[in-house]
Amino acid sequence: MGGDFGPDITVPASLECLQRNPNLKLILVGDETLLKQKIGQKLAAFNGRLTLQHASQTVEMHESPSKALKNKKDSSMRVAINMVRDGLADACVSAGNTGALMATAKFVLKMIPGIDRPAIISTVPSINGHTHVLDLGANVDCTAEHLYQFAVMSNELVKAVENIENPKIGLLNIGEEEVKGNEQVKTAAKLLEASGLNYIGFVEGNSLNAGNVNVDLIVCDGFVGNVALKTMEGCAKMIGTFMKEAFAGSLYGKIAALISYPIIKGFKDRIDPRLYNGASFLGLKGLVIKSHGGADALAFKTAILLAEVEIEKNVLQKISEQVEASLAMSQSA
Amino acid sequence: MGGDFGPDITVPASLECLQRNPNLKLILVGDETLLKQKIGQKLAAFNGRLTLQHASQTVEMHESPSKALKNKKDSSMRVAINMVRDGLADACVSAGNTGALMATAKFVLKMIPGIDRPAIISTVPSINGHTHVLDLGANVDCTAEHLYQFAVMSNELVKAVENIENPKIGLLNIGEEEVKGNEQVKTAAKLLEASGLNYIGFVEGNSLNAGNVNVDLIVCDGFVGNVALKTMEGCAKMIGTFMKEAFAGSLYGKIAALISYPIIKGFKDRIDPRLYNGASFLGLKGLVIKSHGGADALAFKTAILLAEVEIEKNVLQKISEQVEASLAMSQSA
Repeated sequence: MGGDFGPDITVPASLECLQRNPNLKLILVGDETLLKQKIGQKLAAFNGRLTLQHASQTVEMHESPSKALKNKKDSSMRVAINMVRDGLADACVSAGNTGALMATAKFVLKMIPGIDRPAIISTVPSINGHTHVLDLGANVDCTAEHLYQFAVMSNELVKAVENIENPKIGLLNIGEEEVKGNEQVKTAAKLLEASGLNYIGFVEGNSLNAGNVNVDLIVCDGFVGNVALKTMEGCAKMIGTFMKEAFAGSLYGKIAALISYPIIKGFKDRIDPRLYNGASFLGLKGLVIKSHGGADALAFKTAILLAEVEIEKNVLQKISEQVEASLAMSQSA
Repeated sequence: MGGDFGPDITVPASLECLQRNPNLKLILVGDETLLKQKIGQKLAAFNGRLTLQHASQTVEMHESPSKALKNKKDSSMRVAINMVRDGLADACVSAGNTGALMATAKFVLKMIPGIDRPAIISTVPSINGHTHVLDLGANVDCTAEHLYQFAVMSNELVKAVENIENPKIGLLNIGEEEVKGNEQVKTAAKLLEASGLNYIGFVEGNSLNAGNVNVDLIVCDGFVGNVALKTMEGCAKMIGTFMKEAFAGSLYGKIAALISYPIIKGFKDRIDPRLYNGASFLGLKGLVIKSHGGADALAFKTAILLAEVEIEKNVLQKISEQVEASLAMSQSA
């Protein structure tokens, strides 16, 4: 029900995902009458792979997380997360209010023992392919220990979804030299150096999209990560706008635009944010994927696909096992 | 002498600036023999507007600030900053080691009374024109009071160089709602609301290049600002690379590129980082402009031009007066 468009995009995205993957089962949680309307005759077509779960409430996009938690016990997001807790669903995908989704997920699912805080991880496009980044805004004042925990968890996620043995992990800083940065990143660097992880050192903001070094995973405080992510969005939007204005500014430009259209479309697809939609909440005892609130059906499909991959690759169990092993190691050390 | 190319770019940039502005006087500080070689016959042509000041040492690009301060007392940057202190120059422009330049400037020039920390400010392109941003990396752990001081100082700079009465000031945060963010920005917001400044509230990372709100000046912690600036660089580089690859990927693309070349050049010029080169150190009792180390002659010219504008607009005096007035106000309050 969440996001800017609700079932208008979540329903079509769900139907397409069901068509694409014959092993997928989806439970749509929300206003049953409305959902039935949107689905129409297709409900029966998927042989039980598409079911509905009624929820009488909806969390508004700007509702405070604490109010949602207290007053919306039958909201679509709460019911969906309850189903994850009760083993009735393997993951929850939502385009709803991020703060409320995080608070509800934390309250209902609880944290993996040994992890202090949940973190939000997603991928961004880069010259080398793409980069996984966390935290993107769940925490605004991380300690070095939190950053270390984020690295341990996300390392398992990246290993599983990318099929790589030792993801290269960088710590986001304002310089690559050891002396640079605040105490938080300097201490986190020491924790990462002492860990068995493939820590490659400090990386700078440009490494997110176009670093000199090849890095699979970048760890940072949620305040910094969120600013970086949105800076990227703004930068891409500015370049797109300037490009449009340049081509639209003259008859010659308009003709050049027509000729260049297939080329420009091809390169724009490589940075299409809809193909990077879906952020995972790490640290919880259940999979929760947050879609951008403004997602269209293509973007929401990407978020569902991410959930499918994380379920298939058993990401949650791998993280839990690794956290337990890391804790055992640090306690015996 | 500093930067990746030293006098190979600083000398040609200086000569062009002297040609453009007949009121400009430049003192080139560095290895006199080398500088004379690079300048050749042109030294006499400017009727004394171009002079040389010998300095026997050079600070290396990766030298530690403390070592440079201790061991390089006759470096080009130290001598140039000394000349600012002694009133022999109105500003120092350098492409050298940022940390060493900042440490030297702070040591030699001292802080404006009432300001705890210097900050680095520069402009970035935006859909609305451009945005001034600080701090870009001088401080990695600012308090709310520091952020407030940055706003007071930079407000004067923006008023002077942009000829506007009340610059719109935003505080960089991870959401626009009051409840969002860390304690540092929440407290800074209260200080700014209580000030006479035209504080418009929290802005997000996308506001740097392409915000929904029109903002002239964005204030943030140096860690966050530096990451954002470099993220922007990386994002622009990625998009440029993808575009090049798309056009170069086929014969059709190559032909389209030829046809679109003047259009693409026009829009690329709007985000050419060389036209945004030059960051001012605020809070010191003297003007110091830092050029990007990798600047070419065009970029270095932009940094010299920024110094010219700040001198002409009397930015330093305006900041000092405003800081004094703000302090008097806060003491009487």
